[in-house]
Formats: sequence, C-alpha cells, structure tokens
Amino acid sequence: MSKHGQDHDLAIRPHVKCHKSAQIAALQRAAGAMSFCCATIGEAEMMAAAGFTSILITSPLVGEDKIGRAIALTQLDAQLCLVVDNPANAAQLSDLCALAGVSIDVLVDVDPGMHRTGVASQIAAIELVGYVRSLPSLGYQGLQCYAGHVQHIEDAEARQEASLAVMGALRVLCEELKALDWAPAVISGGGTGTYLIDAQAAVLTELQAGSYVVMDNQYNNVWAANALPPPFDVALFVQSAVISANHPGHVTCDAGFKHFAVDGGRPVVARGASLASEYEYFGDVHGLVRTPPGQPQPGLGARIEFVVPHCDPTINLYDQYHCVRGDQLVAIWPVDARGV
Amino acid sequence: MSKHGQDHDLAIRPHVKCHKSAQIAALQRAAGAMSFCCATIGEAEMMAAAGFTSILITSPLVGEDKIGRAIALTQLDAQLCLVVDNPANAAQLSDLCALAGVSIDVLVDVDPGMHRTGVASQIAAIELVGYVRSLPSLGYQGLQCYAGHVQHIEDAEARQEASLAVMGALRVLCEELKALDWAPAVISGGGTGTYLIDAQAAVLTELQAGSYVVMDNQYNNVWAANALPPPFDVALFVQSAVISANHPGHVTCDAGFKHFAVDGGRPVVARGASLASEYEYFGDVHGLVRTPPGQPQPGLGARIEFVVPHCDPTINLYDQYHCVRGDQLVAIWPVDARGV
Repeated sequence: MSKHGQDHDLAIRPHVKCHKSAQIAALQRAAGAMSFCCATIGEAEMMAAAGFTSILITSPLVGEDKIGRAIALTQLDAQLCLVVDNPANAAQLSDLCALAGVSIDVLVDVDPGMHRTGVASQIAAIELVGYVRSLPSLGYQGLQCYAGHVQHIEDAEARQEASLAVMGALRVLCEELKALDWAPAVISGGGTGTYLIDAQAAVLTELQAGSYVVMDNQYNNVWAANALPPPFDVALFVQSAVISANHPGHVTCDAGFKHFAVDGGRPVVARGASLASEYEYFGDVHGLVRTPPGQPQPGLGARIEFVVPHCDPTINLYDQYHCVRGDQLVAIWPVDARGV
Repeated sequence: MSKHGQDHDLAIRPHVKCHKSAQIAALQRAAGAMSFCCATIGEAEMMAAAGFTSILITSPLVGEDKIGRAIALTQLDAQLCLVVDNPANAAQLSDLCALAGVSIDVLVDVDPGMHRTGVASQIAAIELVGYVRSLPSLGYQGLQCYAGHVQHIEDAEARQEASLAVMGALRVLCEELKALDWAPAVISGGGTGTYLIDAQAAVLTELQAGSYVVMDNQYNNVWAANALPPPFDVALFVQSAVISANHPGHVTCDAGFKHFAVDGGRPVVARGASLASEYEYFGDVHGLVRTPPGQPQPGLGARIEFVVPHCDPTINLYDQYHCVRGDQLVAIWPVDARGV
C-alpha cells in the first residue's frame, strides 16, 4: 500500500480501527504511512500515548465528555485532527477549545451517499466549511469523504462506477470551494476495496485503507468475484482445536460467536483440515467443521486455522496477537485499544 | 431462579459464560446458587482465583495444554469437575492426572441430539461411563446433557415437546446405568429457555441456566411468542450516543459490529428514542436508528439504550459493567474473564 501511495502521490493514512495495535502501526509507519486514522477517541488516546501524532479521528466527537478528551489529547498530539458534520457540534467544539486555550484542526465530513455521517449536500458542505472557517478555535484543513458502502461491491465494474460517482461529486465540491478560496488542503477517504480506483480518480490527497494489512474473507471475495488474485496476503488467522469428534461428516471445534465477528459470513478453513470443509457457527464457544464426503476428518485435538469473515471486529475480540513465522511463535503483541 | 431451584429440589449452577464476572457470581451464590458452570478453562481459572470451588467446565478439555491447566487448577479447586465424551480423551486425562498425583471428577457428556459435544448413543454413553469408572485417576460423578438447540424454540408446545423428548431419553439412560449400579449422582443440564420444563421432567439434579441473570432479546422472544411476560427482567443494556443527525427519518449512533453480538438479530431500543424505532447495523462503530414517521428524532448527543440480541457474546465485547440504579452510577464491575 505504501508503494501504491508513492506511485500515485497519495499519502497513506492507515485506519487503526482495523488492528488497534501500536506495534502494527509502527510497522506501517516504517513502511511509509504518513499518519493514522482512528475511529474512536479511545483508539486515538492509545496511539498518542504510544507517541504517534497528526492522528485523524474519522467520526464526529459529540458531547462535552468526548470533546474534553480530545482537547486533553492535544497535549500529546498538537496536530490532532477531528471531523465535523454539524454546525452545533462545530460551535461547541470551538467554544470548548477556546475555554481550554487550544485550537484543533478539522475536516468537514461529506456524506458519500450512504447517509451514515457527513453533511448531506454540496450546499450544506460549503455552508459548514464557511462556518468552520469563521470559528475562532478551529483550523479548517479540508474534507473527509469515506465511501464505506462502495468498498465491498464485488463486481469490479459496478464498484468502479459507484466509486467514481462519489469521487466525481467530491471533485465538484472541491472546485466550488477553490472558487471561494477555501480549497481543501487535505481530502481524506478511500479504503482497501477502492484504493486502485481512488488513485485513478485523483481527488483524494490521502487514503484511509485499513483492512489490507491483515485481510479477511469479505475483501478476498471482492477480488475473487472477478477472478483476480487478492492484491494483499492474508496475515490474520484464528486457531481453534477439535474438542469433539463423535459423528461421521463433522467435528466440533472451540471457536464460536465469541471468536469471530459474524456480520461478514462464515470463517474459511486455511489449515488443519480439508480446504473444502465448511464451518458453521455452533454456539458461543463452538463451531462445526463439516468435512466433504471422502475426505479425512481432523482428529480430536487437531488445530484448525481459519481466515476470518471480517477482520476489524474479530481482532476486537482478542487481547493479543500471536505472531508466527512458519511454525514458530516469534512475538506476542497486545491488541492495545480493544474495546475502546 | 434460586427460588425455582428450592421449589423443585434442583441445584442451581449458573453458567459463568454468560456474565464472566466474579461479582455477579458472588451475588448468585448469595442468592442460593450451589456452584457454577464455566465454558472454558480460562473462565474456570478466573472463578477459582476469586475463591469459588466445585466448578464444572461444560466442554471437553482436549490436549495436554488444557488438561495441564485443569490439573493445576485442582490446587485451588479440589472439587473441580470436567466433562468427557471420548475414551481417548478420558484416558489421556486419567494418565496426566496419575502423573500429577491428583484425581479429577468427571461427568460423561451425552449428546441431546444437536451433535455438538457428547457421546452419540445410549450404548456409547454406557460404555464411556464404564470406561471412566475403570480409569484410576477419574472420579465418575454422573452425566451432563445440555440441549442448547431447544432453549430458543419460540413455540411453547414445540419447545416443551422437544425438551421432554431429550429428558425422556436421558431418563432411560439413567435407569440403565442404575441397573448396572452406575447411577449418576449428578445429572447436569437445562437452560433459561427450558427451566420450567426441566423441573417438570424431574430428571436433572442441577440446572445450568445462565442468561436469566441479565436476559436478552432472544430469550424475551421465547416468551413473547406465546404472549407471556418474560419471567426475568432485563438487566443488561448497551448505551450509545447520537453522533450524526443530518437526515429526516434516521440518526447515526456510535454502536455497531464492535458493540453488539450480531448472531441474534438486532438490538431493540429500550430508552432514549421512540420504542418503535428500528436499529440497523451501520458498520464497525456505527448504528442507524430509524424513527417511525411522525415521531420525534433523538437529537445530536442523545443517549439511546438498547436491549442486546444475545447477552453472552455481547458482554464478552466489554471490559466493564456500569451498574446503575435509576440515573445513578453505583458501581463499575470488571468483566473478569473477557476473551478467555
């Protein structure tokens, strides 16, 4: 991803919500990442405590408590950057910054059409940029526009079309802002599913991709649907052991609802059983691994490793990464911001 | 639940996999719980470290590492009880106990027909009981038969029929064992969905119910389907705040895939928004709350509280309980065995 950024003059700002790990962030930084995105104030606090700066928090911080934590965080990260999508929130943020005697940089968050966060129209975006520029304690830096609904469209043409439509609208907005002399210095967005398209659209100044660093089945499927090899290797696996094997055709392993995020479908066997085996959720701490007819079943105690359906919320279920090279355990890293 | 146990001469052995909390276990103990069930060796280690004894681990422990941890645990809990469903596993358990100079009590796990764990037939059960009795370092205590697939059948008659069928087969097995002079002292099973039926069947000696202590939508629906009020109050809520409100008809809150276990459907609004609102998952850290036409939308920063779809894996996402009485925070309790 860093090479991609260099080739296309795009800063790489990986999303920490994927891995929640200062160790992995340090590797990404060493590989060329400019800085990082965080989804929550808790992730940003972890990253700042680990010495990272110029952090961008990608969801609006609403209410005195969260804004207060952001203001406190500027002590560690004077370049902390927030997003706003609402004038009342921007006004409160500026007021509380003024009281604390600090200034905070902000991006105006633009809705890419998924209606999750972001101002809902070009006019509202321009109005909010103007308003933010008028507030004494906010530093207008530019725009955020993250098209989460586009990342997992499996048909390559449909994904390209949807992504370029979002980027086209964003380009128009940038031109209008430029005409007002309010040109955004930063335009932040993009993800693992659109990083190639985002480069082609040439609107963004930085990419927020996160999942590429470990990958999962959802993103593998984005490429598999078009018979392309995934551009990034899978680095994340959940290991489980067979704890019951009393039936022909299936065994029971010790990984269930508490071991995989289930929003993205089912885990896929990577090692330890026939790759044609199918996993089914079988309760809080149990999974069923069905072996195809004629294939040998894994025995009691056998270790089965799975590619996870969705990396971010799966990693959030664990306190530690076990880092292996081949069969050797080489490090144990904490999931630093799990659950915050 | 304790009163129910007293009324029907059933020991109550609540399942710790639900709450993973020594504080809640202490309250259950004070209310009359005999001891506790754990799903994992990690939960049992937490409970033993907190001073609880006579713990039952309800899934087979397979492999030297987990058996070794169980043997170490007998230092804290000499009455630790395990389940076995496989002669090779029982043999290894006995061998390792002999090497360590300890004896461990076991229940033979009987498959209630869901094919998850447990011996698959009456003959296999009798054979395994005989084998366990022959092993020098295992203490045969009885049977476990947990019908997880029956707990959430929403139609009351169908649930009753399915549950009594399981209990009927279990009664036959118990009679056969009695005829061999191998009568089980302990017969452990049952859950929140069948606790009334289990009492009526009069086969079990102890109930493993767990979810009753906090409840969730899945169990509320078991009663709602028959127009009955749930027999237990909901005590568990996830609180979220509105962070974006730029569209008529819906707002975005800060609780998503990382804040709810999603295997049991969607959270239901309990407070802070119209009770007729609908929640939809909207990403890792975002939820959509759709307000019915004509109802006021919650404002930016409004707190919305949800009843969770499935309590056990939702609690596992958090490090702490915030205990409130009315609007007052009265305690913060750790989720002691989160992720283990």
